[in-house]
Amino acid sequence: MKKIAIVGYGNIGQAALEALEAAPDMECAGIVRRTPAPVKDYKVVTDIRELGEVDVAILATPTRKVEEYAKKVLALGINTVDSFDIHTQIPALRRSLDEVAKANNAVSVISAGWDPGSDSVVRTLMESLAPKGITYTNFGPGRSMGHSVAVRAIEGVKDALSMTIPVGTGIHRRMVYVELDEGADFKAVEAAIKSDPYFVNDETHVSQVESVDALNDVGHGVNLVRKGVSGTTHNQLFEFNMRINNPALTAQVLVNMARASLRQRPGAYTMIEIPVIDMLPGDREQIIAHLV
Amino acid sequence: MKKIAIVGYGNIGQAALEALEAAPDMECAGIVRRTPAPVKDYKVVTDIRELGEVDVAILATPTRKVEEYAKKVLALGINTVDSFDIHTQIPALRRSLDEVAKANNAVSVISAGWDPGSDSVVRTLMESLAPKGITYTNFGPGRSMGHSVAVRAIEGVKDALSMTIPVGTGIHRRMVYVELDEGADFKAVEAAIKSDPYFVNDETHVSQVESVDALNDVGHGVNLVRKGVSGTTHNQLFEFNMRINNPALTAQVLVNMARASLRQRPGAYTMIEIPVIDMLPGDREQIIAHLV
Repeated sequence: MKKIAIVGYGNIGQAALEALEAAPDMECAGIVRRTPAPVKDYKVVTDIRELGEVDVAILATPTRKVEEYAKKVLALGINTVDSFDIHTQIPALRRSLDEVAKANNAVSVISAGWDPGSDSVVRTLMESLAPKGITYTNFGPGRSMGHSVAVRAIEGVKDALSMTIPVGTGIHRRMVYVELDEGADFKAVEAAIKSDPYFVNDETHVSQVESVDALNDVGHGVNLVRKGVSGTTHNQLFEFNMRINNPALTAQVLVNMARASLRQRPGAYTMIEIPVIDMLPGDREQIIAHLV
Repeated sequence: MKKIAIVGYGNIGQAALEALEAAPDMECAGIVRRTPAPVKDYKVVTDIRELGEVDVAILATPTRKVEEYAKKVLALGINTVDSFDIHTQIPALRRSLDEVAKANNAVSVISAGWDPGSDSVVRTLMESLAPKGITYTNFGPGRSMGHSVAVRAIEGVKDALSMTIPVGTGIHRRMVYVELDEGADFKAVEAAIKSDPYFVNDETHVSQVESVDALNDVGHGVNLVRKGVSGTTHNQLFEFNMRINNPALTAQVLVNMARASLRQRPGAYTMIEIPVIDMLPGDREQIIAHLV
C-alpha cells in the first residue's frame, strides 16, 4: 500500500480522503492542517514531516498556495499532486516545479482535476484526431467559484452564487444569485456586478434571494466539441459530455494522479504528458485486455 | 522531417498518405506493395529495404498479416504502427512484438485506430474518473467489415453490406443488404445469415438490393457512456460521441502514432500506454499552454 498524505482539509481534501479510502492500492498516511482538528482515526499534523514515511502528498490547498507548498514537499523527496487551475500560469508552474522535482528525485503532477485535467486529455486527443478544426469547451450548468467570490466582494452583498450556463460555442451566460446586507440597494448591486470585469463580457442576470445556501449544489457539467479535418477529410465530429459532482471528481483525479506519479521519471507533468493507463490500479496486461 | 513508409495501399494506406501529406513534421518515404503500381511521384517498392532510410513503417495491411510484417520491419530497427483490431488477441500481439522491438532497439505501437485506439483512451480515462460503474460502447451507424465478409461467404450472395445500428447498452441491430447471384433464393440466404454465428445473437434484418455498391458510405459512429462512482459519490455521468469517416480517422491515428513512436523507449505499446501529448506535432510547452 502506497502512503498518501492530504495537505488541506476543505471540500477537496475531504473528498480526496473518500477516494483514497475507496482505492485498493493506497492508504491515507495522515492529514496536514493549519489547525489539527481530529479526522476519524487519522493522524492530523501541522507539518508533513510528522507523518513519517509518505510516498505522495495530495495538495488540496487554495490554488495560489500550490507552488509554495509543492516546493516544500518536493524538497523532502515526496511526490506532489495538485489541482492548480489558473490556466495561463500552468506552463510557468510546470517549469518551476520541474526543476525542484528533478533536484530532489521526485515527481510533481500539476493541474490534476477535470478542467484543467481530464478535459485537457480529451481536448488533446480530439485535436490529434482532427488536427485542423475548432474545439469549444462549454461549462455548466454549475457554479463558478471565481465569479461567486467576485460578487461577494461587492459592497452590500452578504453571500452570492454565480452559476455558469453554457449557451454553446464556448459562450456562457451568468446567473447570479445574491443575498444582500440589510439596507443594501439591489439595483446598485446589480449594476456593480454587470460592470465587473468578471461579468462585463457575458450575458448576466442577477436575482435577489433570501438564502444563497438554499441553492447550494456541487453538480457541474462539461460539453466539449470539436469539428475538424482528419488527413484531408472534413466534417469529422467529436463530442465529450459529463454531468458530475465537482469535488468528488476533482478528488478522484488527484488520487489517480498520486498513483500515476509513482510511475513517472523525476520531473513535473501535466495530465496530457502521462499515459492514461498509469491512472488505474491493477495488472497492466489485464487493463489492456479489458479496455483497449 | 521524419521519414515514414506505408506498407499496403488499400483504403487505409491511401488515407495514411493523405494524412502524412497534411502533417508538418513527417514525409512519405515511399510505399511498399506486392505489385508496385505507381502512386503520384512516390517510390513504390516490394521490399521496405529498397526505400533507404525509414524512421517508421505504417502497416496498412490486413489485420491477420500484422504480426508477420511487424516482426520483419522491427528486425530492421524500424518502428512500426498498426491498427490490429482483434480485441482478444491484443495482449498476445503486444507481448510478441515487445520482445522483437526491444531486441532491435525499436518501438511498435499496436492497435492504433479508433476502436481499438482512441476509444480505448477514452474508456480508460472514463474508468479512472469513476472506478466503479459500467461502460457501454455503442457502435454505428456504420458498416461492419467482419459482418459484411461473413455474409459474402454465404452461398448465393454476390455482394453484401452489414450495417451496425446502436440500440443502446452495447446492444446492436444488424441491417444486412444483399445482392444475390442469379437464381439464388432470398429466403434461403436470409435464413443462412440469421443462423450464422456473427448474427445469431443480434436482432438482424436482411434486405435484397440491386446494388450494394450504391449503398457504400464509409461514415461510422461511436457513443461511449459510463455511469459510475468517483470516490464514494454515485451517479457520475460521462459520454463520448463521434461521427466520422472511418478510413480517414484510422489513418490519422496511424500517422499520430508514427510520430508518438519516435518519443517512446524501445518496446511495444497500445495507445493507452502513450501520453496523448506525444500524438501532436510542435513545441510541448505551447501545446500545454494551448490545451491543458
